[in-house]
Amino acid sequence: MTDDDLSRPPLHENTRSGPRAAIVGAGLSGSLLALFLARRGFRVEVYEHRDDPRLSKDEGDGRSINLGLSARGIRALRRAGLLEELWPHTVPMRGRMIHSPSGELTFQPYGTADHEILYSIRRGVLNALLIEHAEALGGVAFFYGLRCVDLDADTGTLTLSDTISGETRRVEADLVVGADGAFSAVRRLMQRGRSADLHQEFLEWGYKELTIPPAPDGGPRTPIEALHLWPADRALIVAHPNTDNSLTCTLFLPHEGGSSFASLGSGAEAERFFRSRFPDALRLIPDLAEEFEANPVGRLVSVRTSAWHAGERVVLVGDACHAVYPFYGQGMNASFEDCLVLDECLARHPADRGAALREYQDLRRPHTDVLAELSKENFLELRDGLRSPVRLLRARADLTLNRIFPRGWQPLYTMISHTSMPYGEALHRARRQNALLGAAAAALSAGAALGAAAAVRRLRRRTGASARRTG
Amino acid sequence: MTDDDLSRPPLHENTRSGPRAAIVGAGLSGSLLALFLARRGFRVEVYEHRDDPRLSKDEGDGRSINLGLSARGIRALRRAGLLEELWPHTVPMRGRMIHSPSGELTFQPYGTADHEILYSIRRGVLNALLIEHAEALGGVAFFYGLRCVDLDADTGTLTLSDTISGETRRVEADLVVGADGAFSAVRRLMQRGRSADLHQEFLEWGYKELTIPPAPDGGPRTPIEALHLWPADRALIVAHPNTDNSLTCTLFLPHEGGSSFASLGSGAEAERFFRSRFPDALRLIPDLAEEFEANPVGRLVSVRTSAWHAGERVVLVGDACHAVYPFYGQGMNASFEDCLVLDECLARHPADRGAALREYQDLRRPHTDVLAELSKENFLELRDGLRSPVRLLRARADLTLNRIFPRGWQPLYTMISHTSMPYGEALHRARRQNALLGAAAAALSAGAALGAAAAVRRLRRRTGASARRTG
Repeated sequence: MTDDDLSRPPLHENTRSGPRAAIVGAGLSGSLLALFLARRGFRVEVYEHRDDPRLSKDEGDGRSINLGLSARGIRALRRAGLLEELWPHTVPMRGRMIHSPSGELTFQPYGTADHEILYSIRRGVLNALLIEHAEALGGVAFFYGLRCVDLDADTGTLTLSDTISGETRRVEADLVVGADGAFSAVRRLMQRGRSADLHQEFLEWGYKELTIPPAPDGGPRTPIEALHLWPADRALIVAHPNTDNSLTCTLFLPHEGGSSFASLGSGAEAERFFRSRFPDALRLIPDLAEEFEANPVGRLVSVRTSAWHAGERVVLVGDACHAVYPFYGQGMNASFEDCLVLDECLARHPADRGAALREYQDLRRPHTDVLAELSKENFLELRDGLRSPVRLLRARADLTLNRIFPRGWQPLYTMISHTSMPYGEALHRARRQNALLGAAAAALSAGAALGAAAAVRRLRRRTGASARRTG
Repeated sequence: MTDDDLSRPPLHENTRSGPRAAIVGAGLSGSLLALFLARRGFRVEVYEHRDDPRLSKDEGDGRSINLGLSARGIRALRRAGLLEELWPHTVPMRGRMIHSPSGELTFQPYGTADHEILYSIRRGVLNALLIEHAEALGGVAFFYGLRCVDLDADTGTLTLSDTISGETRRVEADLVVGADGAFSAVRRLMQRGRSADLHQEFLEWGYKELTIPPAPDGGPRTPIEALHLWPADRALIVAHPNTDNSLTCTLFLPHEGGSSFASLGSGAEAERFFRSRFPDALRLIPDLAEEFEANPVGRLVSVRTSAWHAGERVVLVGDACHAVYPFYGQGMNASFEDCLVLDECLARHPADRGAALREYQDLRRPHTDVLAELSKENFLELRDGLRSPVRLLRARADLTLNRIFPRGWQPLYTMISHTSMPYGEALHRARRQNALLGAAAAALSAGAALGAAAAVRRLRRRTGASARRTG
């Protein structure tokens, strides 16, 4: 992390006179933003329709995809001042460990530099930490079991409904934040009657959580400091390590068709399926049949939208404005980056919140749109080509060039995961590099062609006389 | 129209025992479908949240884009048996009449065959005719001022709210149809909690209705049997003729920026703008300033979605499942084609409505997705290239080839507008034709290159001796 030389924002006194912020959603982006806004002098209230995540932080709900914290997320958390406390809860992932059906392991490091690694962390643990830190600041209050049911975007008036009693209450705020996820109620209510673009797409694949427990001696059953991948024909397992030497697996399968979540009706059928596609993983997941039957099938949704804000009173962060498929490991990292950028924009325009929200959208949206594309492409690559020789060759060439020109040549994955270069810039630079490679290859073949032409000329010169002789 | 050799469906008795259909929306597709379903034996009720369109059919609401009826729409209306009554209300449009700023007119015929023309008709007149015909059948009842506020897609139960009293009532039906337009409530309620894809996009341009009245002598002010176009820099006017020799104009402009709906604040400013961009049109629209100030700015939305149906009880038609930008003139025609195809699918699966709805979606959606793309491309073409020499040359080449090979070669526009070949097939065929043209051009240039090479060889042979002599 060499790009984080910005100083922390000043810690304001949370007076009773600060502007009021109402955040809908106490998930990762909502609770991190609460922290930033409180430090910026806002009086913050956060409304969450579920229970306090701290009540179940170590268990999860059987449908979480573990998180891989990378440069962008780390930068935001450092700015928020809670990186030190986080480290003990993370496991470094130094690269991808690819499992073949025969149990053979291939390790692909994430990068050539020491800091180019990811950190695995449980969603529940991270969320609890964020909420505790925000609450400790003062000036931040979290409320659970309250659902957002209406919004007046012009006045910043939220209507909240108690999920148990059904009673409603109104809340007015200077700034309303929709941090309520891919199916954001704030987004829908804010965009009502406006010219809003919305692209919502479900992947034809879903996912299910499974567990690799620690070995009986408490150690890991497979090398722990890596992101594990089991690529297969129309199936994929990804596993993130946990601090207790267990790994949380996510099985990705098509929803419909042969060997899909629809066709595998029982734990026994899942075991048969694993025996043929993932014999190596079957050995590591002792409770496969039970877990397969007990855990729900999650759906994967991608959302792009515009506008991200309405006037000067309502704004969206995280999945509410850019849900992406999880295959680039950037969902949380991009959401944390939103919070950081929004905080910086608010700092730059202390007297004009409308300008701040506009600038935030202008700075972020083009790049999260690129991330959405990259995340989908990575799904296709994981699905079709992870083991293809061409892909491996390209990845190796990328890393080799990076080793030779550590600053001048960076693989796209490195720029996305290990820097905080805006996503669009990273893609642009990767394309330039590819064009350069293409031009080099063309020059090589042109050189070869010229060489061939010269050879032909030499040949002709030699044979020309005989041709004339016989002609 | 040679492709319409199917016989009409039998006219059922509308008994009290037939299945019940509840159609939300009494617009063009809702009222045509009511007619088809009644003939198929359904007891039909149609719920519309606006007033009876017959109360204002000759006035319009100052924001309609007139309709160009083409082959697909004509085919559906013929099947419904109301083409004969329609003709007196239409004006044939035999091609595009392009107006240059200097007032020069260029006529581009729509096709080479006599039937390759469009028919201009007012939306209100057509809608009234459809409703009257449906009501006359018996077994169809229309209700106005009722808004759909809830839907149970599993049981086919609609909740309707009276727009004046606010009272709600419930209606159960065997088949619920969402014919309620681009912002369909039925679509939203039907897709709630399901994995639904939705792509909603607003164009950065909007539109405003203006009028070219008849000349003082009652005749037309400009040749009447054509679709009129005024292309300009970041501005476009389209005008459809009416039976009273007036023309209904649609002015398309960017919403924002220089010379936009936002920047033209008054009728006087609009006049100044017309004087520089559309001097020829200014002459034809005497009430420009008043109309510009009085008429609202319409927004243009494109919607693609999936699924189009939920189980066997709910289905979407028309803009509710595929709103397109109006630049290919196919919105209404495609919606009418939906009604025809849905009717045919219901006929093919009398005992399995779920299979009928699935087949309807499978038959239609790939093609309306193509139409959405084509409609957007046509906007870009109208905006950027209508007067470009390359485009004119290509259009002329297309028509010439069509004249030489009337069956073998059909311009894309001809296939979309003058046949009922599925949209996707039309695009596929156009691409094959383009590839053929490309290959022919390549062969021509290769031939030229070979010729050149032969010439060089001949030249060399002649100069070779002298080269050797001098060498």
